[in-house]
Amino acid sequence: MPRWEPDGVERLQAAAFELFDEQGFERTTVAEIAQRAGLTQRTFFNHFADKREVLFGLSSELQQEIVREIATCADTLPPLDAVVRALQATADKMFEERRDAVTRRHRIIGANPELRERELSKRAALTDAIAAALHARGLDPETALLTASLSMLVEQTAIQRWTQPAESPPLRELLSDALYSLRMTVK
Amino acid sequence: MPRWEPDGVERLQAAAFELFDEQGFERTTVAEIAQRAGLTQRTFFNHFADKREVLFGLSSELQQEIVREIATCADTLPPLDAVVRALQATADKMFEERRDAVTRRHRIIGANPELRERELSKRAALTDAIAAALHARGLDPETALLTASLSMLVEQTAIQRWTQPAESPPLRELLSDALYSLRMTVK
Repeated sequence: MPRWEPDGVERLQAAAFELFDEQGFERTTVAEIAQRAGLTQRTFFNHFADKREVLFGLSSELQQEIVREIATCADTLPPLDAVVRALQATADKMFEERRDAVTRRHRIIGANPELRERELSKRAALTDAIAAALHARGLDPETALLTASLSMLVEQTAIQRWTQPAESPPLRELLSDALYSLRMTVK
Repeated sequence: MPRWEPDGVERLQAAAFELFDEQGFERTTVAEIAQRAGLTQRTFFNHFADKREVLFGLSSELQQEIVREIATCADTLPPLDAVVRALQATADKMFEERRDAVTRRHRIIGANPELRERELSKRAALTDAIAAALHARGLDPETALLTASLSMLVEQTAIQRWTQPAESPPLRELLSDALYSLRMTVK
């Protein structure tokens, strides 16, 4: 049991991801997650409303972080580049050191249609939040939504590669590569 | 009651869309739909598994049509242009004369989170099918998925405008416009 892990949230998350990955999301109980983490169910419910929240609990923090980065980005950048730069800053802060966990999460969600629907829905909400942040900076609503959607496509393409076992570059670089691929594809 | 409508499926669909739009999807029963269409519930269930199917029943036909159009498209076109051309052909066949119904459907789905999740999921499946069709024509998997995702973004942008009351150009034209906007945004 990972008793060396000081933070309850992190321990519960690591335990949950392991179990979801080993035996499937549906078949894993909160009791098993707490046990694997060496914590009580009460501690689990202090941090998460249910076991699905372990997978999706970070999404509002992620969204706030990205929106904040967009708001502070230099005005001189073209909008899509500004958003990709915000995604890169967020990748450094929230993803880079958690590649194993993110990869596991990616695999767990991919294996379960209900979780995939949930993920798509979260991604749509994030797209809308990015579009709103761009609109707040003066972009017309249609271009803002298009730019936000394109940035999410860049993010997906980069994450897809970053979560493959064989890939090793930092997510920041893969985001640049994905933006380049996007430009080549659209040309 | 629209007795002038010869086709049971179309009548049921029109009745369902009216009712979903008037009183909400959740609160509408199959009995009410059948009654509004002047048909029996048995006829309803001959055509649809449940009331949600009235909204999503066409998606497999749409997918087949788009994939077929991609397969028959000239080899000389760049992939994204080929897919947008396929979407335009499909728009002419399956959408252009049904603008009121499509607009109503769009509004119904937008008003209900569960239906929105379902729509996102159908769209993801369509994206994968388009990517597979492009891969079958020799595109590498990553570029195929990127191109498919971009084409769905073009489709969404165009449909968004086409289903606004004030917009009148044919969907085919709005698809061209959206592809142009996409190119300008990515530039």
